[in-house]
Amino acid sequence: MVTALVFITTERTRINEVAEKLVEIKGVSEVYSISGQYDLVAMIRVKENDEMAELITSQLAKVEGITDTETHIAFRTFSRHDLEHMFSIGFED
Amino acid sequence: MVTALVFITTERTRINEVAEKLVEIKGVSEVYSISGQYDLVAMIRVKENDEMAELITSQLAKVEGITDTETHIAFRTFSRHDLEHMFSIGFED
Amino acid sequence: MVTALVFITTERTRINEVAEKLVEIKGVSEVYSISGQYDLVAMIRVKENDEMAELITSQLAKVEGITDTETHIAFRTFSRHDLEHMFSIGFED
Amino acid sequence: MVTALVFITTERTRINEVAEKLVEIKGVSEVYSISGQYDLVAMIRVKENDEMAELITSQLAKVEGITDTETHIAFRTFSRHDLEHMFSIGFED
Amino acid sequence: MVTALVFITTERTRINEVAEKLVEIKGVSEVYSISGQYDLVAMIRVKENDEMAELITSQLAKVEGITDTETHIAFRTFSRHDLEHMFSIGFED
Amino acid sequence: MVTALVFITTERTRINEVAEKLVEIKGVSEVYSISGQYDLVAMIRVKENDEMAELITSQLAKVEGITDTETHIAFRTFSRHDLEHMFSIGFED
Amino acid sequence: MVTALVFITTERTRINEVAEKLVEIKGVSEVYSISGQYDLVAMIRVKENDEMAELITSQLAKVEGITDTETHIAFRTFSRHDLEHMFSIGFED
Amino acid sequence: MVTALVFITTERTRINEVAEKLVEIKGVSEVYSISGQYDLVAMIRVKENDEMAELITSQLAKVEGITDTETHIAFRTFSRHDLEHMFSIGFED
Amino acid sequence: MVTALVFITTERTRINEVAEKLVEIKGVSEVYSISGQYDLVAMIRVKENDEMAELITSQLAKVEGITDTETHIAFRTFSRHDLEHMFSIGFED
Amino acid sequence: MVTALVFITTERTRINEVAEKLVEIKGVSEVYSISGQYDLVAMIRVKENDEMAELITSQLAKVEGITDTETHIAFRTFSRHDLEHMFSIGFED
Repeated sequence: MVTALVFITTERTRINEVAEKLVEIKGVSEVYSISGQYDLVAMIRVKENDEMAELITSQLAKVEGITDTETHIAFRTFSRHDLEHMFSIGFED
Repeated sequence: MVTALVFITTERTRINEVAEKLVEIKGVSEVYSISGQYDLVAMIRVKENDEMAELITSQLAKVEGITDTETHIAFRTFSRHDLEHMFSIGFED
Repeated sequence: MVTALVFITTERTRINEVAEKLVEIKGVSEVYSISGQYDLVAMIRVKENDEMAELITSQLAKVEGITDTETHIAFRTFSRHDLEHMFSIGFED
Repeated sequence: MVTALVFITTERTRINEVAEKLVEIKGVSEVYSISGQYDLVAMIRVKENDEMAELITSQLAKVEGITDTETHIAFRTFSRHDLEHMFSIGFED
Repeated sequence: MVTALVFITTERTRINEVAEKLVEIKGVSEVYSISGQYDLVAMIRVKENDEMAELITSQLAKVEGITDTETHIAFRTFSRHDLEHMFSIGFED
Repeated sequence: MVTALVFITTERTRINEVAEKLVEIKGVSEVYSISGQYDLVAMIRVKENDEMAELITSQLAKVEGITDTETHIAFRTFSRHDLEHMFSIGFED
Repeated sequence: MVTALVFITTERTRINEVAEKLVEIKGVSEVYSISGQYDLVAMIRVKENDEMAELITSQLAKVEGITDTETHIAFRTFSRHDLEHMFSIGFED
Repeated sequence: MVTALVFITTERTRINEVAEKLVEIKGVSEVYSISGQYDLVAMIRVKENDEMAELITSQLAKVEGITDTETHIAFRTFSRHDLEHMFSIGFED
Repeated sequence: MVTALVFITTERTRINEVAEKLVEIKGVSEVYSISGQYDLVAMIRVKENDEMAELITSQLAKVEGITDTETHIAFRTFSRHDLEHMFSIGFED
Repeated sequence: MVTALVFITTERTRINEVAEKLVEIKGVSEVYSISGQYDLVAMIRVKENDEMAELITSQLAKVEGITDTETHIAFRTFSRHDLEHMFSIGFED
């Protein structure tokens, strides 16, 4: 699993709207509206690097209401949870 | 569930060591070593605000090798996953 | 009580106007126009995290004249005053 | 009443300790440990400008564990509360 | 006497014009066009805090050609000159 | 008259001490301890550019307790006061 | 061979489009879309300084969709590869 | 001789055009298009401070295509060259 | 092939020394000493994400003389050269 | 002729000392102590890129008292002066 965290700044009045559009994109597993200088952080979890490239440079770019994004690729994931298992066997409600 | 993302900068040679110590703290559900200007992002998931305050201002402060932290509280979580369910029924291996 | 400080930048000519609109929002207990790189700091005091999320990501977003906001959640409050008592038993004039 | 907000960065392991020392200083009405790039915000409420000058440039400077401070003087206070009344008639427990 | 220094950025072609408008405002004792990242620094010298608040948040805001201001209140003034005397007995030409 | 504003950051506990040392230097007409990210602003008023160069690059450098300085030369001074007259005919107490 | 790295920020929806236009310019040997605060890094490899000057200040300037560029000239290249050989004998597909 | 270095940012497509206009201004002795976050550095060499003030705050302001300028006055010049001689006896081609 | 660009700041006197040590690490294909706010940029080209993680968070961390690193993962590579071919069939001298 | 501007920050008390050492280095044609956030700007004028690389990454690094340098290579020089002629035929006193 390839994971990335995308720090997102949105237009002031579209924070929740952007978050809802993002989670509809396959590969976006969670989106948090957060305190501080960024508005949202999106967690991207996909199988292949190419999927990540496509999602970041094309799909994300098409979501309206975003003013800036800063992507951070995860080198390693440390957790007592089996995240690969949790997020890949469709824990979607 | 109260969620926070903590952006962490560590001493250059202690990135993995700090990550392994962090995931031993109850409430730290995942830690990612990431590209970019921060070294790690820790996901904190706890039940109460007081637990969050204690973890951030006391427990995190005691982890050696950290040079700076910047905490961002999640106002809302958007996901097709039932994160509350996934992370609270002990998906710890 | 959940407390937050919101650092606000406004359009140059609308500092006082924005402050007056903000204090009309339930949960905004005080607003200070301040020296330095921010124009206003709003003190938010509400009972529940959800109220905070709604106020920050929806209500604040609708106030015209604001160009940027940066929210900081208070983990702990230290005071010789009983703030919970003072601000919750309606010390409104 | 002259009001100021002081944004404070502390040594990592001394956040709560510094907050407790600050609230013992006459004129410091509240201290919040907060999320984001600052560690604490102290609310200063005094009667005269000279008191403010003395507190900021001398008393604050003596509190150990502080690494940086940035003071913002409040020009105006907007509130449905009568803050002058609340904070000046000794609502200290 | 309450003193403040206001760091001002102006539209590129209106530096001198803005300076001339500022010194017409009662309480603005001097304006310097300066080298570096700011264009002007205005020295404000008034009797009362309220006068300062009114000047900064209302009067300054109405001066056209200003793109940003950052106000710094003087806590203390150190000088071999008797500034209070010099600036208050009308040393206007 | 050649005028400059020097933005000064000092060691936390030596703000007033540094200000008092600065005003003893010939050419330093006033020093203000201020709110915001700088600790002091020193006003330098001398007759010749060489005097300014000597004061900034040699004399200021010898004042202990200063951690950083940023000098801004005034191109023009706008004022209803005759500053040249006020500061040059020895209005020192 | 004269080498430079150009850090490029583009309009959000034109990252790939800009990259494709850049590699058509003679002297642009590779373009990477990258994570972090920049969108692209272009590797420029030319024979003469004048070619570099022309490419950077004229040709790059004409590529639409770029919002900002920051050029960094390489003083020295360290590699186990013979880059001069690789990039100059036409390893174009 | 009074010398200043002006760091200049221009519109992306007008770097060379702005440089050519600047060197036509009396007092602008050289202009360099440079790598890094600024686009140009202009060397100003004039006889009097007033000439410098006029050039920086009025003449430079009228040059189209400039988006930002930051002026740095030279306190002292160190050189094995006799710059005063070289630049004042008309070494123009 | 997984590619990354690492922006590196070194101790002032150890720029070349660090570059020479870096190119000895398997996966570091080129290192450039560059103009601007960074000292070096290292190009990392490896086959697998895990190799990248190991190189960045462990091997790089052990190179003495580095004061800070900022890693940027390449999502896509655009080039008229067949970089995969050039760098993978041992063009090492 | 290859030209570069090096923005230099020095230890507070060693500005002039560093400038005097720099002008002794062959290729350093002038050094200015300047106002603003940098202390010195050194003008480097050499014949070949390799000379520039050697001067910047080795010779400059050995000058004591420097805390940071930022080198900007000149792509083009615009001037009514024949700088190549002036600086290359030994106008040294």
